[in-house]
Amino acid sequence: MGVTDSPKSGSRLRVAVAGSTGYAGGSCVDLLLGHPEVELVQVGSRSHPGQLHRNVYPGSSCDLILQPEVDAANCDVVVSALSPGQAARSAPAWLDQGATVIDISADFRLRDPALFRTWYGEVHPAPHLLPQAVMALPELAPEAIAGANLLALPGCFSTAAILACGPAAMTHLVEPEVVVDAKTGVSGAGRTAGEAFLYSELSESMTAYGVGGHRHLPEMEQTLTDLAGGRFAVTFVPHLAPMSRGIVATCYLRPLPGVTLGQLRSAYLERYDGQPFVTVGDRPTPSKLASYTNHCFLSLHQQGAHVIVCAVLDNLGRGASSQAIQVLNQRFQLDPMSGLKGGPKWP
Amino acid sequence: MGVTDSPKSGSRLRVAVAGSTGYAGGSCVDLLLGHPEVELVQVGSRSHPGQLHRNVYPGSSCDLILQPEVDAANCDVVVSALSPGQAARSAPAWLDQGATVIDISADFRLRDPALFRTWYGEVHPAPHLLPQAVMALPELAPEAIAGANLLALPGCFSTAAILACGPAAMTHLVEPEVVVDAKTGVSGAGRTAGEAFLYSELSESMTAYGVGGHRHLPEMEQTLTDLAGGRFAVTFVPHLAPMSRGIVATCYLRPLPGVTLGQLRSAYLERYDGQPFVTVGDRPTPSKLASYTNHCFLSLHQQGAHVIVCAVLDNLGRGASSQAIQVLNQRFQLDPMSGLKGGPKWP
Amino acid sequence: MGVTDSPKSGSRLRVAVAGSTGYAGGSCVDLLLGHPEVELVQVGSRSHPGQLHRNVYPGSSCDLILQPEVDAANCDVVVSALSPGQAARSAPAWLDQGATVIDISADFRLRDPALFRTWYGEVHPAPHLLPQAVMALPELAPEAIAGANLLALPGCFSTAAILACGPAAMTHLVEPEVVVDAKTGVSGAGRTAGEAFLYSELSESMTAYGVGGHRHLPEMEQTLTDLAGGRFAVTFVPHLAPMSRGIVATCYLRPLPGVTLGQLRSAYLERYDGQPFVTVGDRPTPSKLASYTNHCFLSLHQQGAHVIVCAVLDNLGRGASSQAIQVLNQRFQLDPMSGLKGGPKWP
Amino acid sequence: MGVTDSPKSGSRLRVAVAGSTGYAGGSCVDLLLGHPEVELVQVGSRSHPGQLHRNVYPGSSCDLILQPEVDAANCDVVVSALSPGQAARSAPAWLDQGATVIDISADFRLRDPALFRTWYGEVHPAPHLLPQAVMALPELAPEAIAGANLLALPGCFSTAAILACGPAAMTHLVEPEVVVDAKTGVSGAGRTAGEAFLYSELSESMTAYGVGGHRHLPEMEQTLTDLAGGRFAVTFVPHLAPMSRGIVATCYLRPLPGVTLGQLRSAYLERYDGQPFVTVGDRPTPSKLASYTNHCFLSLHQQGAHVIVCAVLDNLGRGASSQAIQVLNQRFQLDPMSGLKGGPKWP
Repeated sequence: MGVTDSPKSGSRLRVAVAGSTGYAGGSCVDLLLGHPEVELVQVGSRSHPGQLHRNVYPGSSCDLILQPEVDAANCDVVVSALSPGQAARSAPAWLDQGATVIDISADFRLRDPALFRTWYGEVHPAPHLLPQAVMALPELAPEAIAGANLLALPGCFSTAAILACGPAAMTHLVEPEVVVDAKTGVSGAGRTAGEAFLYSELSESMTAYGVGGHRHLPEMEQTLTDLAGGRFAVTFVPHLAPMSRGIVATCYLRPLPGVTLGQLRSAYLERYDGQPFVTVGDRPTPSKLASYTNHCFLSLHQQGAHVIVCAVLDNLGRGASSQAIQVLNQRFQLDPMSGLKGGPKWP
Repeated sequence: MGVTDSPKSGSRLRVAVAGSTGYAGGSCVDLLLGHPEVELVQVGSRSHPGQLHRNVYPGSSCDLILQPEVDAANCDVVVSALSPGQAARSAPAWLDQGATVIDISADFRLRDPALFRTWYGEVHPAPHLLPQAVMALPELAPEAIAGANLLALPGCFSTAAILACGPAAMTHLVEPEVVVDAKTGVSGAGRTAGEAFLYSELSESMTAYGVGGHRHLPEMEQTLTDLAGGRFAVTFVPHLAPMSRGIVATCYLRPLPGVTLGQLRSAYLERYDGQPFVTVGDRPTPSKLASYTNHCFLSLHQQGAHVIVCAVLDNLGRGASSQAIQVLNQRFQLDPMSGLKGGPKWP
Repeated sequence: MGVTDSPKSGSRLRVAVAGSTGYAGGSCVDLLLGHPEVELVQVGSRSHPGQLHRNVYPGSSCDLILQPEVDAANCDVVVSALSPGQAARSAPAWLDQGATVIDISADFRLRDPALFRTWYGEVHPAPHLLPQAVMALPELAPEAIAGANLLALPGCFSTAAILACGPAAMTHLVEPEVVVDAKTGVSGAGRTAGEAFLYSELSESMTAYGVGGHRHLPEMEQTLTDLAGGRFAVTFVPHLAPMSRGIVATCYLRPLPGVTLGQLRSAYLERYDGQPFVTVGDRPTPSKLASYTNHCFLSLHQQGAHVIVCAVLDNLGRGASSQAIQVLNQRFQLDPMSGLKGGPKWP
Repeated sequence: MGVTDSPKSGSRLRVAVAGSTGYAGGSCVDLLLGHPEVELVQVGSRSHPGQLHRNVYPGSSCDLILQPEVDAANCDVVVSALSPGQAARSAPAWLDQGATVIDISADFRLRDPALFRTWYGEVHPAPHLLPQAVMALPELAPEAIAGANLLALPGCFSTAAILACGPAAMTHLVEPEVVVDAKTGVSGAGRTAGEAFLYSELSESMTAYGVGGHRHLPEMEQTLTDLAGGRFAVTFVPHLAPMSRGIVATCYLRPLPGVTLGQLRSAYLERYDGQPFVTVGDRPTPSKLASYTNHCFLSLHQQGAHVIVCAVLDNLGRGASSQAIQVLNQRFQLDPMSGLKGGPKWP
């Protein structure tokens, strides 16, 4: 029982994508088709069952027929990009069938099912799986990924905040609290959203939302607390920006007395040394340079009593689909760059 | 000597605009032409002297010929929208000629000329005028405006931050420090900027800038310190957003022990009671709803240990040109809405 | 029976807006509130009955409660901005109640009910009204507006095409045919549209649509044929552009042998002489300069065998709501500029 | 003498890029770095000599030092993306050194040097080279590319128009004339442009330009005339759209009497059969689906007396840099997809 590091059959991993016609799932399909060590074998969609993926998702070259439910019988991996609650309903069967599940949705991030209920408004459909779920942090907790069969990806905002604050939390160089002010492109709202996400409503406009508390807050706090080995408090406000892709998370930390920017910078450089998808610099990066890549650009700055870490990534790339590929590569000990070689485009 | 509350001649104030072909100055011209109690008598432009304003500034209906230097001899008011240092060079003559000067530029905001030198890279051209300059805060310090002849407008970011934090600072309900994370439209960079502000570079992209310290930081600190009656520290990071107009300033404050969101909200409602250009609400406003208006939308929220105040305004409107009109109206005891009746447009 | 040129009661026209929470209707409400000779007395909305208009439409300052159906009993005018077929269902009652109907929708544009059925997919609900309906062309056929009680506004694209080609058709200086290539902002699709109009789908993208034939084609042909006094053929392709507002219609005409650009220009200048809302120039205008105004900018050019007329307007302004005000002013012999004084804003 | 089909040394073609820090040149550098059969050996820039390419062009991973002039001594190919006149000044030396020149600029497109003078305002710097220059049309005239050492790429608009109209012209199924109404992203204006291309001026706005005649007009006419074997007249109006990349060219043709849409479609399908970079469909494609690819999407439609062909491509991709790679592959008989495998991204 259970998946080993070898594909079920042949030389390539057999991968299915559930929720393949949303933005995150559709981007996964695109990346997996270009992955030399993967065979995309199944694509799921409850909204368009029976149609060809290429006829539903713009730009797709995937000729598979959309299945109403993903059957993991012949799959090594299911990448799930479903809406909240759906992955938790399907994952038990997928795991029983021996597939590794890489979940882009929120269902397996929070260890405490009561928190899931608070933030997602329903009883968790599969609380028995939570103990085995692993929050996938490819650079910060790689060892946990190696043997896991149920891998939860942090949300797009959380990925940025965790990459930005993780090294500071782990080295205890800062007060255990942070203000995360994040700005996201509209695709973060998904492909089925309504009036509020129409072009005419959003162009030439920015707005804060979820100011009293956003769903990514508890997973940020849980993860940074884990990394710090003690309570790490987060205040988090997201903003919607008039662009399709991209996240800029500006994180305000307070170094402990005597800790310098140089010390923090060294800690970050050390933590991310040799990591192909994280850059530590001293100037903020325009978010467009991260678009369509798996890269996260960090920059460290000092102003008054704060050290400010800016994290820049693509919410659909490093914040969702390409991070799923990164985790898949890591889980199956493939070349880290496999399927992820695309670089930034300008302009 | 000096200007009284009556116009020099006739029933309408005679107003000149220096720097009238930039975005802030051009917007002033447009507003002044629609102001029933103002006669626009002169427009200045060093870059296009001798041309008609309407032939230089898109959408202008102003038939005046651009003057290389504004001569205040027949003016009651000079609104100055020049680049740093220029207003300070011209203001002595304007004041000598008996005009009231309303300066949109940064030249008369900082009381300490050493700070000007630090942030603007040159010795202040007219330090002797600084003692008489008044920072114009129409809602928060109206009495100072009444008799002043040299009125400095806070910068666009500062206007947002001061309106957002002023009542908290004045009532001592919060710790004397704030993180201001601001997002601005591109027009804040002015009309003569270069490659970095080309459409192709900025579309679909956001970026932090000035993270180590931005020119509006010292004027925010000076003003909030004045309002608080004691040191009030600001950490401020601006971001460039892919839109033409608009500022969203998200301000993270810490209430003093025992202070509730309700108490803070009451303080804000009281402070802004009856003010036509500030709204205090409980939901963030899309920045587009402030565009082309003089309005500032504030919303108060609580999250963990922070109270968060979002301020939303138009960087060229309330952050520059229409605020100049607001100050002019207040200085000369005109109807506050005079020339400022335009409301928001949607979409 | 019927409405005279005097309001039913008091000194101001009593006006209702049906469909007041869409973009066209919402913009009408805004303009009517600022109209000195109008009292806005009723606002309709089938989707949000019972709510305050200001709580439904962003930026609205209208305190009226939304009615599921507009009752014209106490109205002088109903401005209708409903979806196809709806105005035709309601107009008989409104007219019976003595109101003048100004219809922004498509229901009363086509004289031939068979054409309505072909293009809108349903039998016309009130064909008996078609003979009395007047296509409102404020500059080109003003006399028809004066006594009409049922006024149909041409669609946004048609307004641009008719203003661009009307004088040429009327003076018979060109071949009786035109290619109209039009580009529109997204708000033309209305406020209730779906996935195809999400920000993420449209940003950084343009697309042609309706290439085989668009609903505005028959009304363009009907009107230009009327103006020419004989068959005038139109080929029309609209394109969706990544912007909220604005139409650029580029019209390719062929002058008759011997006809010069100068002659055509003279014909246009003569036709639009004294008209406050149409400008005839020789350089194309950026569409943003027409936004939020009732203005149509025309420019005439020659290239090879073609004379090209570019028409630029705001699809929600001159193409819908402000044109309704223009027609209302004309119908009731009010000042043409009443309620329409707002000028362009830059940037 | 001259370059054969084998690289000068080793197994990979040695390629230099002149003008490598503009948008077209910078994109070429990116593509060439990912091309498995190319070694990028030199990058030129007059504006930033001595700096690393990666420090000048955002997103670049090119570690070469920018040279003020490209020296072709050790190059098999020079791809030139210089401003008008510059390539013609440098090409004689490059050709003398035995390099093949692929020129993205306009210098070698027009056979008649008098036309160059008319449209570019200077005497052609190297008229003696014009007879040997070949207009590169990879799908429509592949045989001419095979042996050529001086290859001129059509401009971005021309590429769209020629691909859209070429098959109709070559098969004589239409009247020998066309109206080309094109819409382009702003990057077509290059990276050094001024005030008119600032974000704030262009967002939410479209405008026609060059209505009296644009520089791409004569090369369209020359090429379509060549393909038709007789005079083929073009009327061409470009428009600037608020997006970074993308061209939509809507081409209005008139079929000869008796010619059907089906016949034209067959001609197009036959002409582009087996071509990996051109698709012939029946629905217009959103331009974003062509961005960052070498693909041109054509769709054919009928409306009244016109057949309308829409061509959609990326002005910097198929309209410039990736087309240069396509031509390079064809010239040196490489795999057509080599270096061009990137597909569309959504959203």
